[in-house]
Amino acid sequence: MRGKGPVLVMSLLSQLKDPSQIKALSASQLKSLAEEIRKETVEVVSRNGGHLSSNLGIVETTLALYHTFDFPKDKLIFDVGHQCYAHKMLSGRYEAFGGLRTEGGISGFPDANESPFDVFTTGHAGTSVSMGLGLCAARDRAGEDYCVINVVGDGSLVNGLNLEAIMSKDTKPKNYIVILNDNGMSISKNRNGFYGFISKSTTKKGYVKSKRLFKKVFGNSFITRFLRKIRGLIKRIFNSENYFEKFGFKYVGLCDGNDIKELSAILSRVKEACREKAVFLHIKTTKGKGLKKAEESSDYYHGVGKNMQCGAGEFSEALGAAVNALIEKDGRVVAVTAAMKDGTGLSAVEKKHPSNFFDVGIAEEFAVTFAAGMAKGGLKPIVAVYSTFLQRAYDEILHDVCLQNLPVVFCIDRAGLVGEDGKTHQGVFDLSYLRHIPGITLLAPVCAAEMAEMLDYALSLNTPVAIRYPKSDAHAECRPIPLSKGLWAEVRPGKGAVLLAVGPRMLNSALAAAEACPEADAAVIAVRCIKPLCGQYLDEVSGREIITLEENATAGGFGAAVAEYYAEKPGSRLHVMGVKDEFIAHGSVSFQLGECGLTAAAAEEELQKILGGK
Amino acid sequence: MRGKGPVLVMSLLSQLKDPSQIKALSASQLKSLAEEIRKETVEVVSRNGGHLSSNLGIVETTLALYHTFDFPKDKLIFDVGHQCYAHKMLSGRYEAFGGLRTEGGISGFPDANESPFDVFTTGHAGTSVSMGLGLCAARDRAGEDYCVINVVGDGSLVNGLNLEAIMSKDTKPKNYIVILNDNGMSISKNRNGFYGFISKSTTKKGYVKSKRLFKKVFGNSFITRFLRKIRGLIKRIFNSENYFEKFGFKYVGLCDGNDIKELSAILSRVKEACREKAVFLHIKTTKGKGLKKAEESSDYYHGVGKNMQCGAGEFSEALGAAVNALIEKDGRVVAVTAAMKDGTGLSAVEKKHPSNFFDVGIAEEFAVTFAAGMAKGGLKPIVAVYSTFLQRAYDEILHDVCLQNLPVVFCIDRAGLVGEDGKTHQGVFDLSYLRHIPGITLLAPVCAAEMAEMLDYALSLNTPVAIRYPKSDAHAECRPIPLSKGLWAEVRPGKGAVLLAVGPRMLNSALAAAEACPEADAAVIAVRCIKPLCGQYLDEVSGREIITLEENATAGGFGAAVAEYYAEKPGSRLHVMGVKDEFIAHGSVSFQLGECGLTAAAAEEELQKILGGK
Repeated sequence: MRGKGPVLVMSLLSQLKDPSQIKALSASQLKSLAEEIRKETVEVVSRNGGHLSSNLGIVETTLALYHTFDFPKDKLIFDVGHQCYAHKMLSGRYEAFGGLRTEGGISGFPDANESPFDVFTTGHAGTSVSMGLGLCAARDRAGEDYCVINVVGDGSLVNGLNLEAIMSKDTKPKNYIVILNDNGMSISKNRNGFYGFISKSTTKKGYVKSKRLFKKVFGNSFITRFLRKIRGLIKRIFNSENYFEKFGFKYVGLCDGNDIKELSAILSRVKEACREKAVFLHIKTTKGKGLKKAEESSDYYHGVGKNMQCGAGEFSEALGAAVNALIEKDGRVVAVTAAMKDGTGLSAVEKKHPSNFFDVGIAEEFAVTFAAGMAKGGLKPIVAVYSTFLQRAYDEILHDVCLQNLPVVFCIDRAGLVGEDGKTHQGVFDLSYLRHIPGITLLAPVCAAEMAEMLDYALSLNTPVAIRYPKSDAHAECRPIPLSKGLWAEVRPGKGAVLLAVGPRMLNSALAAAEACPEADAAVIAVRCIKPLCGQYLDEVSGREIITLEENATAGGFGAAVAEYYAEKPGSRLHVMGVKDEFIAHGSVSFQLGECGLTAAAAEEELQKILGGK
Repeated sequence: MRGKGPVLVMSLLSQLKDPSQIKALSASQLKSLAEEIRKETVEVVSRNGGHLSSNLGIVETTLALYHTFDFPKDKLIFDVGHQCYAHKMLSGRYEAFGGLRTEGGISGFPDANESPFDVFTTGHAGTSVSMGLGLCAARDRAGEDYCVINVVGDGSLVNGLNLEAIMSKDTKPKNYIVILNDNGMSISKNRNGFYGFISKSTTKKGYVKSKRLFKKVFGNSFITRFLRKIRGLIKRIFNSENYFEKFGFKYVGLCDGNDIKELSAILSRVKEACREKAVFLHIKTTKGKGLKKAEESSDYYHGVGKNMQCGAGEFSEALGAAVNALIEKDGRVVAVTAAMKDGTGLSAVEKKHPSNFFDVGIAEEFAVTFAAGMAKGGLKPIVAVYSTFLQRAYDEILHDVCLQNLPVVFCIDRAGLVGEDGKTHQGVFDLSYLRHIPGITLLAPVCAAEMAEMLDYALSLNTPVAIRYPKSDAHAECRPIPLSKGLWAEVRPGKGAVLLAVGPRMLNSALAAAEACPEADAAVIAVRCIKPLCGQYLDEVSGREIITLEENATAGGFGAAVAEYYAEKPGSRLHVMGVKDEFIAHGSVSFQLGECGLTAAAAEEELQKILGGK
């Protein structure tokens, strides 16, 4: 059965009942399938938002993998996980794909609860080689027979966790394959040393020559029929010498990851070869392939919002502008990020003050300790990282910054519920993982317009400070409040219950609840400093009913801090509203706020309960 | 002035008023000085405990560094920090050295508050290259002129944080030197790939030959006078090709780090050379040098207690035995550690069941995610790491284990106050950095004898579990309590105040306080599960005066959990006793318990207050 027109082609994807059917497809059918997947990806991402460039780039590689291996018996682990769209469509989730990233729909990341084809639930970079090696160790002890394949791309290879794993031993397990999906993006742009290190080892001339031979021999025929002919031809690719050999891999490369035929042929060989020795397969893909604007600006289209909206949120934009202004006043101010210059808004700094800007790649740990070194040397580093990714640098914040009492300012973007990215990306732990660290100050602006003043304040402290905020305050009704009004600013006076709200969304919920329940005569406080607490205010209102609202785990967060403060004061009654003790799945932010009971309605209900109890 | 006898030799160290005097010393004086330092090290470590083997190995290297560079203008960063004893003696702290690791005395680690010669306060591995690069960036922007030197040893080089930094760029700053102190210990034993990687690049024959030439030319004369002659001779050492060149270093090696003359000569050249390009200097030293038993068993003598007592504490010993017993029942149980097999007691497992034992080197992140992979594949991993070092793997615990709900058991050793190691090593944050992670169970045995039963229980849960305990319960008076008595076991019945105590020392304090204050009729509960809380018990005693005791930060710890639980119950009155919001300095554990108000006397005082208030 061969697809000949768009109608039949469309049916290929929808007709796939079992991924094993992919093995029987012809070269042209695979090509059509690739186009279908690409089209579906663009369509759904346009509607739902998601990761575009990398998913367009990995289509042929994914098809070649499905053509060669038996999933889910063989185990496929993507790193970073967001390259999984084609994989999801091919593993029985094509029909569900339209619901990508929406509540109740499928996740934008591999999710072990969603499908046996997703081995791990992964959203953070650098995890795959460790996971793969662990899986192999378990398999070999159990005497099982499957292949473990890591597809590592987007700069994840040079993340410290992956480096530790790659370099852990000079032998690696058999039936283990690491595929470096090298799309020449995040790594090369940073002139990362490891990248040059790999590149130099690939015999590019040999590669081109092999490829020409390939084309010549295969013509329009297909791999399975010609596999016997390949052996001689791909020798050059297969026999490249590489540093990865020192770490116990057989190195194979460089291959075109967008050429299904070539890659399938190589993978068949790799599948055989890895029975003797682990293989490190180096492929090149074109990020954003097939969509001109994404190919040209794949960084920009790395992650897109609904309707292909890209770029930073209001807070991130405010950060870029504020840091630029600070640099213009004081050249010692420098900005550091970890492969998130667009998302954090720091690309504005790179543009205007390139020598004050450092993007270290996906290396949050290095980013933080590097900043510590710069601060020790007299600079004023501002480190902007997403809340969920900063988790990777918890020890560095504690040991390398706070223990040294160095003036590093952390700008924690995507703090709070993150919506469509879901479980792996929730920024709901930072208050809990930072609050117990001695010497740190924790701030939370009420809106983006406060960013500049808050950064000024943070720098003036000359000690470690973290400022946390969500991506966007687009729907925030709150207005900037001058810091002179106090870090705990009374936004609504009242003599009844006290609502202590952290961040723009919570302030909105609190204000709306107070307005909706005037008989509660509730005071609403914008809590812009979580550590230290404003003990004076807490003492003043001691004995009144207190409600805390935060987009952070209730365990160890702001509400917990207030509970600790009031522990010895028996008259106080506190209700802590925050993120429940679960990993919160993807969906819209408002869906998630509802899930966690953090809406205006939920706050109003609390006020009503208080009134009822009186 | 040349030292000729032991009396005069002894005076060298005590006569050093300024480290610059070292530059004027003759070769034989330097040698004598080395012996003095070594003697003092053994003497003080015998008395106070400390890191023995690595400090004996690094003496000559430190002297050569002081002979060549101008500290503190030039910046010297040790990684791991514990190699700093000679450095401390040479930088004005010889007289204070007798107080090493004692309260009010000097720290066993570099401490920036102690001396300008200690650039950073460092105890965790892998931090130096990031710190060094940051410092260089600041220096170069300020147009300052000093040299930054990292001495990286003991397996720290292959820690993910260092790897990220080394591989961050293909250029490195000028006037920057990384010295790899390769003592062939922790790295090689683990057959770490990176180590083979380095070793293969060194021309050992060339090294030996150069060294012979060195000896021949220098005879007994000294470097400064012969520097001009060196140039030709050390060409071979200096011109080794190495992979570090790819990361922007000039590689120099392999040199004998225990030969002051040779190393000083090399360092003079390196000092010149780094003005053009960063230098990676590879030296070999003998760990434990000069003390036979330490040379022979340098792992064992890595860190020693007072009176040269080595080895694991009671809990660690119990862990080794318990894990061995589990493996004998179920071959799927495996043990993982990160370069701490002796300290955690897992060397017993390596000995008895080597194929069930994994030591991944100083790579806590890899250890945890590797365990996640093994758990996914059906194994039952038990990961034993010190509380302070597990901080490095916070994100891996959250994202790679708990988000996946994988049955990994963490055995958190050295939890609580750690005594002489001090600030950088306090295990007082784990309850706070783990408690907010969804799905984890947090346990704390009352004594080592409970270890086996608790491990059994942890495995039976089939979900992520952490068990935290201190090194030793030698002075614990508490007795094992069968788990059937409840994870919250009533150790002392009473109708008055309730003392909720976590861990052996706190249980001791609570029991002693209750006994000393019989009129309080206090109940004492051994809290062996911090998460989840025993809500039933808390409800039962609601309204009574509650005192929580824990060796953990009060912010976000166990007391905080109880405060959160009682937040909405206005009748309860809670007093949280825990570690104050500061980094707690070195000294004895009992000194630190006093500092934090966690003694029996402090608990009794709380009981008296309650009685007084009634």
